[in-house]
Amino acid sequence: MLPEGLKHVTALLARLPGVGEKTALRYALELLADPHSAGELSAALAELSATVGTCERCGHFAERHGTAAVVCSICADPKRDHRLLCVVERVADLLAIERSGAMRGRYFVLGRLLSPLEGITPADLPLPLLWQRIEQDSIEELLIATPPSVDGEATALLLGREFGPRVRVSRIASGIPHGGDLQFANQVTLGRAIEGRRSLDRG
Amino acid sequence: MLPEGLKHVTALLARLPGVGEKTALRYALELLADPHSAGELSAALAELSATVGTCERCGHFAERHGTAAVVCSICADPKRDHRLLCVVERVADLLAIERSGAMRGRYFVLGRLLSPLEGITPADLPLPLLWQRIEQDSIEELLIATPPSVDGEATALLLGREFGPRVRVSRIASGIPHGGDLQFANQVTLGRAIEGRRSLDRG
Repeated sequence: MLPEGLKHVTALLARLPGVGEKTALRYALELLADPHSAGELSAALAELSATVGTCERCGHFAERHGTAAVVCSICADPKRDHRLLCVVERVADLLAIERSGAMRGRYFVLGRLLSPLEGITPADLPLPLLWQRIEQDSIEELLIATPPSVDGEATALLLGREFGPRVRVSRIASGIPHGGDLQFANQVTLGRAIEGRRSLDRG
Repeated sequence: MLPEGLKHVTALLARLPGVGEKTALRYALELLADPHSAGELSAALAELSATVGTCERCGHFAERHGTAAVVCSICADPKRDHRLLCVVERVADLLAIERSGAMRGRYFVLGRLLSPLEGITPADLPLPLLWQRIEQDSIEELLIATPPSVDGEATALLLGREFGPRVRVSRIASGIPHGGDLQFANQVTLGRAIEGRRSLDRG
């Protein structure tokens, strides 16, 4: 019953993460009612892969300048601590950590986690690239910031075994989130919060 | 910190209804990681307004064929009851009613509701067009399917006063939704469900 063009746009929008058929149709109707925005989005998407590339050193997204090597602003920043490397699953995680302002080193984006269920084995992870990065930059500490999930913990264990003999390997803390309520925390989170307890400085 | 192209796409996606900055960035990262989908969406959006137009009779979306008059599949369907016209606020409402399969007449899309708060007065509604449609098609019943909200009810009242002298004007029922729980229904809905009660046929 929908016009073909509208159906097509709806189907493409429904590929976005967390977007179902109804939401995609809502977006498509909005874009149809506002041809100016639809045109702008079309042009911006057409340019996206021409102007934005993947940093050759860490996997973060970076401006592309002609045929020059693509290096992101973090890898290019000389003020970053070159001895500390934070390993994340996705660029979205990198951005979240950057927003916290707590990371003074650089990053390495794995792109995926170990997952026996999905058949992702150590051979599917970019371990040779990570080795190369550690050697080239004389990394001293590898901070594993994969999520505290089954796959994230398995990946952290693997990285610890692989790189532990060469560099200090650390893991982000897991516990009650800031502002969180203990009575609503699950058992695993509470267990981790207690295992990972720190002594308070006496003032 | 984000590349300009990514920032731009994120800002445009954040204009979609119900999409905030974080969700827009999530969509943009997905599109960046999948250049094929981004390209398809770009092309589909560029074609959207060229292939999809607005039905000149009812305001529904319709395929555009060159310079021919744009008439939607519902207005063009001779099997529809030409005496019954259902007035809705938006095309999304029309689509929802069509999915129900309960409407055998045609539609008229108002595009907006009366809203004293937003300064939308009767002069801002397409009443002359609706008059014309009623006369041309010899409409006998106008079913007002604006939402049961303050603005929707005000619009229904206005349409009743305007067209009541000429055609039979009816209003969709308001009450407890199918599968809904009485204890969670609000007072207004319960009041309407009781006011609008119907006698049960004795078997």
